[in-house]
Amino acid sequence: MRVVRVRYEGRVFYATLEGKYVRCLNKDAGLNEPLLLEQATILSPVAPSKIICAALNYHAHAMEMDKAVPEEPVLFLKPPSAIIGAWQPIILPSQSSRVDFEGELAVVIGKTCRHIGVDEASEYIFGYTCANDVTARDLQARDGLYGRAKGFDTFAPVGPWIETEVPDPSNVTITTRLNGLVRQQGSSADMIFSPWELVSFASSVMTLLPGDVILTGTPSGIGPMAPGDEVQVEISGVALLINSVVAEEDNIPGRGVIQ
Amino acid sequence: MRVVRVRYEGRVFYATLEGKYVRCLNKDAGLNEPLLLEQATILSPVAPSKIICAALNYHAHAMEMDKAVPEEPVLFLKPPSAIIGAWQPIILPSQSSRVDFEGELAVVIGKTCRHIGVDEASEYIFGYTCANDVTARDLQARDGLYGRAKGFDTFAPVGPWIETEVPDPSNVTITTRLNGLVRQQGSSADMIFSPWELVSFASSVMTLLPGDVILTGTPSGIGPMAPGDEVQVEISGVALLINSVVAEEDNIPGRGVIQ
Repeated sequence: MRVVRVRYEGRVFYATLEGKYVRCLNKDAGLNEPLLLEQATILSPVAPSKIICAALNYHAHAMEMDKAVPEEPVLFLKPPSAIIGAWQPIILPSQSSRVDFEGELAVVIGKTCRHIGVDEASEYIFGYTCANDVTARDLQARDGLYGRAKGFDTFAPVGPWIETEVPDPSNVTITTRLNGLVRQQGSSADMIFSPWELVSFASSVMTLLPGDVILTGTPSGIGPMAPGDEVQVEISGVALLINSVVAEEDNIPGRGVIQ
Repeated sequence: MRVVRVRYEGRVFYATLEGKYVRCLNKDAGLNEPLLLEQATILSPVAPSKIICAALNYHAHAMEMDKAVPEEPVLFLKPPSAIIGAWQPIILPSQSSRVDFEGELAVVIGKTCRHIGVDEASEYIFGYTCANDVTARDLQARDGLYGRAKGFDTFAPVGPWIETEVPDPSNVTITTRLNGLVRQQGSSADMIFSPWELVSFASSVMTLLPGDVILTGTPSGIGPMAPGDEVQVEISGVALLINSVVAEEDNIPGRGVIQ
């Protein structure tokens, strides 16, 4: 089942995606008939309380970053304000001169949990989607901590839908294309810690809430984006996430207050 | 004005704290008369979308950690799931053998903002409160990134109220006491970046939302806590935050699912 979050006639709701149609999942919304997808706006499929990320979770990426393979998952956070949906632009901030794509498999939590074992993790997973852990590579090296380098608005593209039926998340292919050319291609079988191990480990630290997202790390092949680029993250049996890339304008509209 | 968030007869709302009374701030709640404080439960005064923290923001703490003074603020995030209110226990996780207190002045954002200047930052600040940036010191060193070391449940005590009138937040005294003994005492005048500079800088990276919290860093004197300890963070003209300290139990109640 593909689950999307959409805006339709000013209302925001979760829906199933069925070909050209979406069907509202809220039975009390008075929207029992399927709606034409083209009449709705697809939003990011999640509005999480937190985005937990695994650093260096692929053997090949640890090698390209010249880092040792960690013995336990190493976690950092991205702010929910960084989330955008599919087809929304990634904005390259003027503070950075190198912003990279990092295509990743994202786990979406389905039920509140804490201290769950690896073998029971799948019961707490709602589904999987595509994500791009956009990173200002220069600021990452300068700051040491990732609050800024991975925290800019638009630095967490996610979507377009959550696939609830992924037969084997530990053996899907993650492909990142820049302007149609394959730049990253790896299998989740190359992960150092499986999606279930990451969920179990994260839950040993903090309470996971429905809608929380865990980014499972990126394969090798990371590289920079430029204004005008189009970046695609495709995961076999999961989804295809497409975002354009634009430069932050010198004169920021609505400086002071947005929205 | 002191603003608290309370639970009263099953309802959660913001209120002003006036001596022994609280007064609901929602005019439509049908609670126009003052309520006795003892009949309500004080919660953490904030339920933020994100907690932004400044690393190494006091000259004296940078010195004790043997780190260079940063040229720009260095940011990291704590998850909202880490928040507890005053008088709730800090739980020492079994994964760590050294968990430290870090008393800090916390800024509470009042209005949505992005790209605001230092001189206009105060317009977007709702008020100030006390916080404890609880840190698993051993895991901080081991992981390098702070997602785990600073992200455990209960690692972000905040409160008990938001003080909206702080005449000069750049010159308040932060005192941390362990079992009544002063362990940290510093002035926000020793900050490398002022509260307004931190708000402006954070807003140059990400959209700040009402209720978002910025922890402004800790003075020198950090140290470990043990089960049975009581830790106090007092900030002159702001508030006094008191929390007990307990060990995570071997048999965690409700293992699997909480709440």
